[in-house]
Amino acid sequence: MHEHLEAYITKNKLKFQEEMSKHLRQLDIPPRLKESMVYSAEAGGKMLRPILLAASYEMFSKDINKILSIGVALEMIHTYSLIHDDLPSMDNDDYRRGKLTNHKVFDEATAILAGDALLTYSFEIISTDPYLTDKQKIEIIKLLSSSSGAKGMVGGQILDLEAENHPVELHELEKIHTMKTGELLKFAIYSGAYLGNATNEQLNHLREFAYYLGLIFQVQDDILDVTGDVNKIGKPLGSDQSNQKSTFPNLLGAEGALEYKNQYVQKAKNALQKVNAENSYLFALTDYFSQRDH
Amino acid sequence: MHEHLEAYITKNKLKFQEEMSKHLRQLDIPPRLKESMVYSAEAGGKMLRPILLAASYEMFSKDINKILSIGVALEMIHTYSLIHDDLPSMDNDDYRRGKLTNHKVFDEATAILAGDALLTYSFEIISTDPYLTDKQKIEIIKLLSSSSGAKGMVGGQILDLEAENHPVELHELEKIHTMKTGELLKFAIYSGAYLGNATNEQLNHLREFAYYLGLIFQVQDDILDVTGDVNKIGKPLGSDQSNQKSTFPNLLGAEGALEYKNQYVQKAKNALQKVNAENSYLFALTDYFSQRDH
Repeated sequence: MHEHLEAYITKNKLKFQEEMSKHLRQLDIPPRLKESMVYSAEAGGKMLRPILLAASYEMFSKDINKILSIGVALEMIHTYSLIHDDLPSMDNDDYRRGKLTNHKVFDEATAILAGDALLTYSFEIISTDPYLTDKQKIEIIKLLSSSSGAKGMVGGQILDLEAENHPVELHELEKIHTMKTGELLKFAIYSGAYLGNATNEQLNHLREFAYYLGLIFQVQDDILDVTGDVNKIGKPLGSDQSNQKSTFPNLLGAEGALEYKNQYVQKAKNALQKVNAENSYLFALTDYFSQRDH
Repeated sequence: MHEHLEAYITKNKLKFQEEMSKHLRQLDIPPRLKESMVYSAEAGGKMLRPILLAASYEMFSKDINKILSIGVALEMIHTYSLIHDDLPSMDNDDYRRGKLTNHKVFDEATAILAGDALLTYSFEIISTDPYLTDKQKIEIIKLLSSSSGAKGMVGGQILDLEAENHPVELHELEKIHTMKTGELLKFAIYSGAYLGNATNEQLNHLREFAYYLGLIFQVQDDILDVTGDVNKIGKPLGSDQSNQKSTFPNLLGAEGALEYKNQYVQKAKNALQKVNAENSYLFALTDYFSQRDH
């Protein structure tokens, strides 16, 4: 690592935010749709997925231009999923990142369409990228559509909704979050290493790492919903409890959830050691994810 | 033309329907999501877009395998757009093709997610197609995402919603429908010819043809909403009037709308004559579209 983790995160967050805004602001589309897309895309997302993509890529290669559009596509897909998840018929959330949710500012129809448009645009951005070969673009589109669709994120969201109001077991909870959150994190890490020309063996270890990281991410999310600071998180806390959602803390207890998380932090670090990545940003990000307060 | 138009339509409808069902039914995804996706995909769509794709492709080339997955992707995107358009916050329709709409059978959350999943899966299907080159796949994904996103179908839907309850002028109505319906029809016709190795000049004439065809399609849709047979159309008629939507008949009068349509039928046929397609299925389909009763 050549710079402090916080500086690395900030630098990449700004870079991908700027790149995403550039793509959106040059669109010649109906003004209301554009406003709605830009509103959520510029609502202060943490850009964790593009940052993971960059950290994974830079373990193997330097030219960051190669992954810019993929980071933007990733964040657009994440943003669309938040817009749709927040809708009244899903999680019915009024606030996100300290701001009103998309459908509260615009309306439900516009929010649905803004989500649809962000999802669709993400594939256009990859297909028109000037730095990637056609072969790379196709490999990326195959992985991204698979991780974000019915087999991944969208499938996880439906399982998550179904799990409301009835208790689930630990392996079911792991499945929900592996699909809903983990698959897209895995895409970020895998595609970064793939484009950096990692070997198949390295890719396998990183896939394993990404699986653990997804669970770490979600356990910490659940822990924050119970113990977090509302001002840092930007949305009402305790919502899991009021939705009667199964969470790691209520399945394992507060202590148990912490232990569970620490166990996966260890496994994640072991996987990284197999690719000699003890000094990588990915290694540092594992602790960062595990200890984040928002 | 080697067979009667009706036989050609039926043959292709069955072929693409079977291909789409095959793609959906082999998915290993949460059962409720799968049921919801299959429900709308198998609700008896007319497969007009895949049929146009095939008719355009077969003017230039024979091996129909090359366009199977594109036809499936097109129809999945069309299906997702219907599911989302029918939602209570959009057109609030209870029936479609004579059956309950997706959100009436399942629920709003499932309908939104089924639409998201169909859209995402369409890009996966193209990216994993065994017959196309990477270059062709990328060109297709670029065109499909552009025609179905904010610059095309999704953008047209938001303009359509905005146009409710206030009068619009003819050029605005044309813009709405060119975006909402025309762009995807244009994609079908253009991508068929592109994969069949049409020349640039031929592609230009077909693009012009597709523009006219999109308007013919919509004028006839509007005419049917006023004069059609509810049993053939499968949804309540007069809904444009009750939604106070601007339509071609209420802007131009019943006679004027017919004249307008016939004028574009002539232009469409002229464009086809420039590629010597007087005996093509595309030519015959122009009359078919213009005179369809459902």
